[in-house]
Amino acid sequence: MISNNEPHVDFRNFNVTIPDVETTYWCTRFELPSEIVKKPHHIIRFDGIVSPQSEGVVHHMELFHCNVPPEKEVPKFNGPCTTEQKPMGLTECRRVIGAWALGAANFIYPKEAGGTIGGRAQSRYVVLEVHFNNPDLKSNIIDQSGIRIYYTPQRRKYDAAIMEVGLEYNSKNSIPPHLAAFRLSGYCLGPCTNVGLPETGITVFASQLHTHSTGVQVFTRIIRTDGKIEILNIDRHYSPHFQEIRILQKPIQIYRNDTILHTCIYNTLRRDDMTFGGYSIHDEMCVNYMHYYPKAELELCKTSVNDASLNEFFLAIHKVDYALTDTTHKTVEENYESIRWTPLTSAILQTFYEEAPIHLSCNGSNGNYLPGGNWDIYSAQEPLQRDVVLPSRCHQ
Amino acid sequence: MISNNEPHVDFRNFNVTIPDVETTYWCTRFELPSEIVKKPHHIIRFDGIVSPQSEGVVHHMELFHCNVPPEKEVPKFNGPCTTEQKPMGLTECRRVIGAWALGAANFIYPKEAGGTIGGRAQSRYVVLEVHFNNPDLKSNIIDQSGIRIYYTPQRRKYDAAIMEVGLEYNSKNSIPPHLAAFRLSGYCLGPCTNVGLPETGITVFASQLHTHSTGVQVFTRIIRTDGKIEILNIDRHYSPHFQEIRILQKPIQIYRNDTILHTCIYNTLRRDDMTFGGYSIHDEMCVNYMHYYPKAELELCKTSVNDASLNEFFLAIHKVDYALTDTTHKTVEENYESIRWTPLTSAILQTFYEEAPIHLSCNGSNGNYLPGGNWDIYSAQEPLQRDVVLPSRCHQ
Repeated sequence: MISNNEPHVDFRNFNVTIPDVETTYWCTRFELPSEIVKKPHHIIRFDGIVSPQSEGVVHHMELFHCNVPPEKEVPKFNGPCTTEQKPMGLTECRRVIGAWALGAANFIYPKEAGGTIGGRAQSRYVVLEVHFNNPDLKSNIIDQSGIRIYYTPQRRKYDAAIMEVGLEYNSKNSIPPHLAAFRLSGYCLGPCTNVGLPETGITVFASQLHTHSTGVQVFTRIIRTDGKIEILNIDRHYSPHFQEIRILQKPIQIYRNDTILHTCIYNTLRRDDMTFGGYSIHDEMCVNYMHYYPKAELELCKTSVNDASLNEFFLAIHKVDYALTDTTHKTVEENYESIRWTPLTSAILQTFYEEAPIHLSCNGSNGNYLPGGNWDIYSAQEPLQRDVVLPSRCHQ
Repeated sequence: MISNNEPHVDFRNFNVTIPDVETTYWCTRFELPSEIVKKPHHIIRFDGIVSPQSEGVVHHMELFHCNVPPEKEVPKFNGPCTTEQKPMGLTECRRVIGAWALGAANFIYPKEAGGTIGGRAQSRYVVLEVHFNNPDLKSNIIDQSGIRIYYTPQRRKYDAAIMEVGLEYNSKNSIPPHLAAFRLSGYCLGPCTNVGLPETGITVFASQLHTHSTGVQVFTRIIRTDGKIEILNIDRHYSPHFQEIRILQKPIQIYRNDTILHTCIYNTLRRDDMTFGGYSIHDEMCVNYMHYYPKAELELCKTSVNDASLNEFFLAIHKVDYALTDTTHKTVEENYESIRWTPLTSAILQTFYEEAPIHLSCNGSNGNYLPGGNWDIYSAQEPLQRDVVLPSRCHQ
């Protein structure tokens, strides 16, 4: 355990008056303490600090490190993240070094690892982003919420990092309306873990599951090279309102050639139109941010259905259900919207997603593909990965 | 062979002027020759006789024996079968004793069997029905077409008879529109052949396949109790315009507990609405009239999908495709018409027909069920019968 008296630094709102609108993202730029700027440190714990008067309104908070050269200034800012006044200079502040969400406990790193921060080679700037969710339009709440970082110059054996697995952010994998449970999966396949993980493998010790508002179940499974399946994280009662980072009860190793199969189940009973994969709050995502060590080449391993196969699907649904799909003149979104969505056509799409060839993005920390890491892989080569069945009793 | 000089009698039209309309059924009542009336005979051959001037217009002809008590008069008649002037007394004249259709050869019984006719216990009346198909509306053709019966008082070892297998004449099994090939099958199952056939089995020596206008392939298979499958009759290029009775190249035995699986494939590309099973020329049938000996208890062995299962289908298609089916307030026909027929929903119906429980009518010659012969049989008990695959090369 790490005592509350250990060295720490707070990044908290400066008496922000929470706007009386439903949704506000509030951004504040900070500088790291000079002792951290001087030499590399490890973050060994971080806590969310929610002002008592703001409880129930602070939805989640993230502390981002700015991934810019150390000499580069990041402009001072304190205001809504979405305002046009927000300086472009904050755009590169996206590396998560601390986070809190409704339901989250304090985040304590395993004793052999820490989050990397500080040193002359790194930018000294961080940005706190606080999401206020204020559906009752309460006014006059003065907020000082934020994140507390515990740090140490005695760096531990391993640098921890975050790896993102699941679905690519595009509309190829989308969700029909009026369904109680539609399943999407991302397949981080063996060829990617083979080139992207160290020979000794990695240890995942925490996991943050992420969807937008229609996600109802999320789980990540590891498929070993011998076909055995282990559950990394599972939430059978997932709520997008509780996106805490969870420390795994038991850390789990991932080795080269293992497959990381990340699955989200969505409920679109209240939607009348197709829900697309994408960035907007009305779009959907299916991601697991895995906290692990030691830091690997691989940072993002995500898939979506293969383009040519999706066109074949649009052609087939035209033939069998007279949908006015048109792969020459319509976009993917327009084609999905040309289909008469029923449980029947939805079931066909579900089966298609489970059996169709996929495109796999296997990216390093610079955002580029790892060597060979841009694959159109045919599912027929990986049949087991689509067929696994979860045990009926919850794990963990 | 039976020489043309053997005793015979002709039942031919008396100089009928073929009406200049597309479709005419012409009916003529005859009396059998007195020597036949006096004692039971065997029919050993029958020929179609088409007047030269009527060739191409005479579509098919059938000679029916009247199944009424011998003392009962059947009124004299010579006119269109469908006119209201046709006496009701002809209604019972339905037992086929001779037939000809476009493409038919002379029908010669196997030497050990003959068709039953004559004797004091039988009616002396027969009715000839000639179907004129005159789409060119030709006029002034005087027709003397009909059927010639060869008979003998030296009766052979076995009485021949006709058994009807295939689908029941109702709308439960129906055909969606706009399909190149939709399959319907009737299943004369082991429990029926077990109670309806003699212990020594029967020998089928001829077969008449029958559908209405959308039939394109018809075949009958025998499934033995050991699972082996034999083809009784197959027409991969079936035309409803050539409904001849075919003498089988090789007679085939059917034993107790064998299954007789009769299948028809329909093409409804030119239809915009559902084609129902039924009697009308716009409805469809799927039947094989098998000529066999010795005469058995079983005369009709036909199936259709089980009522409760069909209701479950209508309920399911409401759920999965939002069809406005309603098993409480709509008829079977109305429910079929409530479905949006696409290749997809049609494929579901096809699978349903192949896998759903069935009702089996197992009837004797009096039209009543044989003992136990009214079954709702679950297909799960007979899985093999739905899965058989035809050889790719034609037999016969």
